[in-house]
Amino acid sequence: MYEHWLAERTHYFDASGIRKVFDLAAKLAHPVNLSIGQPDFDAPEVARQAAIEAISSRRNGYTQAQGAAELRQKVQQQVDAQYGAGIREAFITSGTSGGLLLALMSMVDPDDEVILFDPYFVMYESLVKMLGAKPVYISTYPDFQIDVQKVRDAITPKTKMIIFNSPANPTGMVASEEVVREVALLAKEKNVMLVSDEIYKFFCYDGTFASPAKYNQDVLVLDGYSKCYGMPGWRIGFAHGPREIIQQMLKFQQYTFVCAPSALQLGACAALETDMTPYLNAYRHKRDLVYEGLKNDYEIVRSGGAFYSFPKAPTTSATEFVTRMIQEYQLLVIPGNVFSRHDTHFRISFAADDAVIEKGIDILLEALKK
Amino acid sequence: MYEHWLAERTHYFDASGIRKVFDLAAKLAHPVNLSIGQPDFDAPEVARQAAIEAISSRRNGYTQAQGAAELRQKVQQQVDAQYGAGIREAFITSGTSGGLLLALMSMVDPDDEVILFDPYFVMYESLVKMLGAKPVYISTYPDFQIDVQKVRDAITPKTKMIIFNSPANPTGMVASEEVVREVALLAKEKNVMLVSDEIYKFFCYDGTFASPAKYNQDVLVLDGYSKCYGMPGWRIGFAHGPREIIQQMLKFQQYTFVCAPSALQLGACAALETDMTPYLNAYRHKRDLVYEGLKNDYEIVRSGGAFYSFPKAPTTSATEFVTRMIQEYQLLVIPGNVFSRHDTHFRISFAADDAVIEKGIDILLEALKK
Repeated sequence: MYEHWLAERTHYFDASGIRKVFDLAAKLAHPVNLSIGQPDFDAPEVARQAAIEAISSRRNGYTQAQGAAELRQKVQQQVDAQYGAGIREAFITSGTSGGLLLALMSMVDPDDEVILFDPYFVMYESLVKMLGAKPVYISTYPDFQIDVQKVRDAITPKTKMIIFNSPANPTGMVASEEVVREVALLAKEKNVMLVSDEIYKFFCYDGTFASPAKYNQDVLVLDGYSKCYGMPGWRIGFAHGPREIIQQMLKFQQYTFVCAPSALQLGACAALETDMTPYLNAYRHKRDLVYEGLKNDYEIVRSGGAFYSFPKAPTTSATEFVTRMIQEYQLLVIPGNVFSRHDTHFRISFAADDAVIEKGIDILLEALKK
Repeated sequence: MYEHWLAERTHYFDASGIRKVFDLAAKLAHPVNLSIGQPDFDAPEVARQAAIEAISSRRNGYTQAQGAAELRQKVQQQVDAQYGAGIREAFITSGTSGGLLLALMSMVDPDDEVILFDPYFVMYESLVKMLGAKPVYISTYPDFQIDVQKVRDAITPKTKMIIFNSPANPTGMVASEEVVREVALLAKEKNVMLVSDEIYKFFCYDGTFASPAKYNQDVLVLDGYSKCYGMPGWRIGFAHGPREIIQQMLKFQQYTFVCAPSALQLGACAALETDMTPYLNAYRHKRDLVYEGLKNDYEIVRSGGAFYSFPKAPTTSATEFVTRMIQEYQLLVIPGNVFSRHDTHFRISFAADDAVIEKGIDILLEALKK
């Protein structure tokens, strides 16, 4: 009855499969939840206090589209310090997802090809499809590392963009500096826009983070505070890149997000000085728990970053396996086909209490015995 | 150099003309500012306290896409109380603008026609163009009232949607219940989606507000708390309408806004019980100040609602007049061509101190003498 009112693009993509798992999970009394895409720690005290202070002192109106001056300037200074003054322009987005939408709306036309690494963050595929463009998948199975030759081979005259994500959701893969450099230089050589989603850059457990923007000025970087500072519900992120692209993104921002939440921008601003290393160490330990706990019994790659691991399911269909885990053990994990054209693996989020992680591991080991 | 990366849709619309005025204004030392699109009062104490409480009690993670349960349930109850249980579904958006984007993405295809009343809120035209659709303008000059026969005449087989806004930005027009009913029934008869932007419904100075949803179940209502509760920077709004449309909007929400800012949703929830009548009375007085102050010297329609008045400029070009007001008198108002295909009028926002309004009126009268 309402079908005739729906835009064509509503048919191009589905509701998130994660939501389907959550719907299934809503009926569980005591779930062992390893499905959460947000850290289990809270925003730093200093950030919460600054947000509260802002709310109490009438900072409840709109900010400029590019962000509250205090935060935007600090971000611009950080970007200038890293990449040189006057090279890259920064502004505040409504979360990293907000930046992603603005980037794709600014650059992706129908029928453009956009290169994604499979497994990919679910939003990349959906947004590319929503805009009527064509996702081109480069498989990174089985070790989730990027083969730069495959990227080169996938580039056609229609390739508009590569979406790069290291550390990666859902695999925990961290690209080596060499791969980062090669992808950056390949994009430059081929004149393809490289979008680098750096939301998980804080969570690098075995080395330092490298951005492709270091090797290619035209890279558009999307980043945010949700994961590293425990404030996903605040919806504060930032983007930086060539001024001409940023200005187009800002034009879309005016008519969509308007601005990121004002008082919370000031909260995020105060967080920037906080030393979060203790959380990094705690999360490295969680990573170890998962890897050491499963490595003898599951086909699993040791995660270098983010807070996910992506082991292979012991049955042909990961969805079947995950459904069984939920129904028999109340263990919540996400089937791989949510993030991939393959339904062979499943995502474990280790953004959880150590006790919950250990319980989850016990269940996964137990399940193999049946 | 970056041109080849930009999507076609970046060429379909411009940056907001309001922003250009603000850029011009940024150089002024002591502006008389009657250009602001947000109330001059703060969020209620009870709302600020509830937001602070939420921030302090770990409500800083994502909420469900449809909103925090507390707020969504309250909104659904209000909608049910007004329209009957089980008829309309409600969810929480990132401001009313957020709801507008989701609505248009869910329903508007390229080449669809979307009927707008000219003058219109600037976002309507830009978003319709951004999606490659065609705005069809129905002039409401000179009294800004809607002529329903003109709407009937404008409907073609390509008409997908009518965007209705009463009380209206930038004119302050409030449609009579008779017109609201006729537009609602016309949309039903012609099977056209009617979107009702009700963000200014609190600001009705001479009667009660009427929604077209009262006369047509299929109307999609967009609303929010920015204006009535003085929290525009919080980015909290809501939408309600037929379940099938709402579900599609939620699908887009997952991949764009993710959710409205979590702690601030709980703040808005607490605001819902607040009696804001004193502000309504204060704003009625501001409306009177503007109308009584200018009616003998300017061609001006008495605003029935919102916090705008839209008088005719005394010169042929409103832009020229506004530029002169800014440069000679530091008076900030917005030229009509930002909101219209005509550049004959200018927008006064009376969301300002009475003293500022009075000063602005003095300047406008003084300017006529030269």
